[in-house]
Amino acid sequence: MTSSDDLGGAFTDTSTAWLSPETLESISAQVPLVYVDALPVRVDERGVVTHVGLLLRVASDGSISRQLVSGRVLFNERIRDALIRHLEKDLGPVALPRIPPEPTPFTIVEYFPDEFVSGFVDPRHHAVSLAYVVPVFGDCTPTQEALDLAWFTPEEAVSDRVRGEMTGGQDRLIRLALAHVGVLP
Amino acid sequence: MTSSDDLGGAFTDTSTAWLSPETLESISAQVPLVYVDALPVRVDERGVVTHVGLLLRVASDGSISRQLVSGRVLFNERIRDALIRHLEKDLGPVALPRIPPEPTPFTIVEYFPDEFVSGFVDPRHHAVSLAYVVPVFGDCTPTQEALDLAWFTPEEAVSDRVRGEMTGGQDRLIRLALAHVGVLP
Amino acid sequence: MTSSDDLGGAFTDTSTAWLSPETLESISAQVPLVYVDALPVRVDERGVVTHVGLLLRVASDGSISRQLVSGRVLFNERIRDALIRHLEKDLGPVALPRIPPEPTPFTIVEYFPDEFVSGFVDPRHHAVSLAYVVPVFGDCTPTQEALDLAWFTPEEAVSDRVRGEMTGGQDRLIRLALAHVGVLP
Amino acid sequence: MTSSDDLGGAFTDTSTAWLSPETLESISAQVPLVYVDALPVRVDERGVVTHVGLLLRVASDGSISRQLVSGRVLFNERIRDALIRHLEKDLGPVALPRIPPEPTPFTIVEYFPDEFVSGFVDPRHHAVSLAYVVPVFGDCTPTQEALDLAWFTPEEAVSDRVRGEMTGGQDRLIRLALAHVGVLP
Repeated sequence: MTSSDDLGGAFTDTSTAWLSPETLESISAQVPLVYVDALPVRVDERGVVTHVGLLLRVASDGSISRQLVSGRVLFNERIRDALIRHLEKDLGPVALPRIPPEPTPFTIVEYFPDEFVSGFVDPRHHAVSLAYVVPVFGDCTPTQEALDLAWFTPEEAVSDRVRGEMTGGQDRLIRLALAHVGVLP
Repeated sequence: MTSSDDLGGAFTDTSTAWLSPETLESISAQVPLVYVDALPVRVDERGVVTHVGLLLRVASDGSISRQLVSGRVLFNERIRDALIRHLEKDLGPVALPRIPPEPTPFTIVEYFPDEFVSGFVDPRHHAVSLAYVVPVFGDCTPTQEALDLAWFTPEEAVSDRVRGEMTGGQDRLIRLALAHVGVLP
Repeated sequence: MTSSDDLGGAFTDTSTAWLSPETLESISAQVPLVYVDALPVRVDERGVVTHVGLLLRVASDGSISRQLVSGRVLFNERIRDALIRHLEKDLGPVALPRIPPEPTPFTIVEYFPDEFVSGFVDPRHHAVSLAYVVPVFGDCTPTQEALDLAWFTPEEAVSDRVRGEMTGGQDRLIRLALAHVGVLP
Repeated sequence: MTSSDDLGGAFTDTSTAWLSPETLESISAQVPLVYVDALPVRVDERGVVTHVGLLLRVASDGSISRQLVSGRVLFNERIRDALIRHLEKDLGPVALPRIPPEPTPFTIVEYFPDEFVSGFVDPRHHAVSLAYVVPVFGDCTPTQEALDLAWFTPEEAVSDRVRGEMTGGQDRLIRLALAHVGVLP
């Protein structure tokens, strides 16, 4: 049980959105959950992505692996507020993320416990995740459960070494993100 | 209780996905639901949208109004299967919809009971909906709860008359769709 | 003849890209030109577009009208450099535009002298323009040929009054941009 | 000199659009040209891309290599008409391509003679190309300069073998396309 679930968005009332692990487990056995994924990136003055930030943390399958920022959208929470909340939770309060003006994610990720359904795996539940690339301009310090935050060039991010540190399709999601911003090697 | 909820997708096991109204009501008071919206369109041989199809049906607020095809994504159901299921449910089995190859929706619609949160309203629950424009090439016959299906040119679809027949932000969603395909008047 | 045409991008050699009006006129009678359109916007801390910036200037048809930032892509110039060059030319050197990380424009605008081809008109030539929404964070001061720069809310930007001050399909392009960022009223 | 250049689109007058090689060479030394790239794909009944079609032809650098459908947009020609013209020219008259309803390409490709500018190379000129994924439903027979047309699964298309048969960044463009439609391995 993490304390992050009870941090509501600034603009909607999510005060009743916190759920006990038992309640969430019961719900997630019956409906898909709404998630967001965010790939924090550094951009140069022309907007070109130069680095992507990956967290080192305990994955949902128990392994230690490189991951994007990810988390659940709460009841009554706007997508933008969920993005900001999870980015602040994982990167600290002065990361200065710039949420894109358009609401459209760069892709939709469908996570299933069964690895053969979509290639994106979450052993805990079926989740539909809206995935965004989010430029950050401030200082990022891994917080809470994250063990580390490291920045990689696009070439490093798709290297065998870094891909070997990711599970559940996270390496593939990063390639989709790099392709969207035109810097997939 | 509609019979549509227990029609599973072809590629995933949604046999346990049907939920009683009481259970769904309880869940939807605690988490946002995953929905899809689809605007059926006719295109010419160059791919240009010439007409949009709107259903006449009883809206979630009880009024009779023009609507897009819309519905819930079931537990263990892929987004594509949910789209096909709802399109077949509302347009009949020979509508021949062509689901786009890209998984990215043209926009994300956040429905809330409170009309002042996002401008998109569903009095029943908080839903996050992935919205797609779907060309259909076969015969469309309104089925189940739909009273009628009518085709409108882009000019007609944004006219005061047709907009006056829509509620809950559906008229705005159609303008976003028409803009995406470049034919917003 | 403006001096802006010979300002090259930082990363490519466009030193030979300046063309005399006669040469450009001859070329533009034979091939479509590559253009960029940029709608400068103000966003709030959650990334939501709150205002759009429109220039008041002499349009290509001789009228004084509200316009987006727009201009030609030079020989050997990258799209990003063309965007920055035209934004600086029209908004001044401290507008601090943030070019989006993705290279994909929100729409493609096809300008023709004939107003009935696409609805987007440029009496001088056939141009294919890549259109972007660009958040700006600094001070904007209209420069060169622009008579004024004014900021409008989305509601004001689509009002009859402001639409009446635009020609050549610019009002429609703004509606497409507002739809893309989810704030079309 | 190919005969394809004087086939005009159905809706605009491109009768004067044919240019002699000398004229085109002179123009392309002074302005970027407008191009389209199209990746023909086969999709299943749910819209998932199962195969991509690649032409075997003499590349602009003189080598024989696998390529997408590609070509110039003529003066007074609409983008959609250019796409159809080039698809018919390369895949034959009964390929039955379905041009997407949205005008937005999945990416913008900037071709330069210098391979170090963008990674996309055309030794003949600077071109700005709008790139589309186009499902085709009919019989495809390579025509004109194409030596062969072969269909590859996404896994095959990104294999070292097939990538080794491509030059000028075409292999990277295919990965960007596969990422856009969610099937990049």
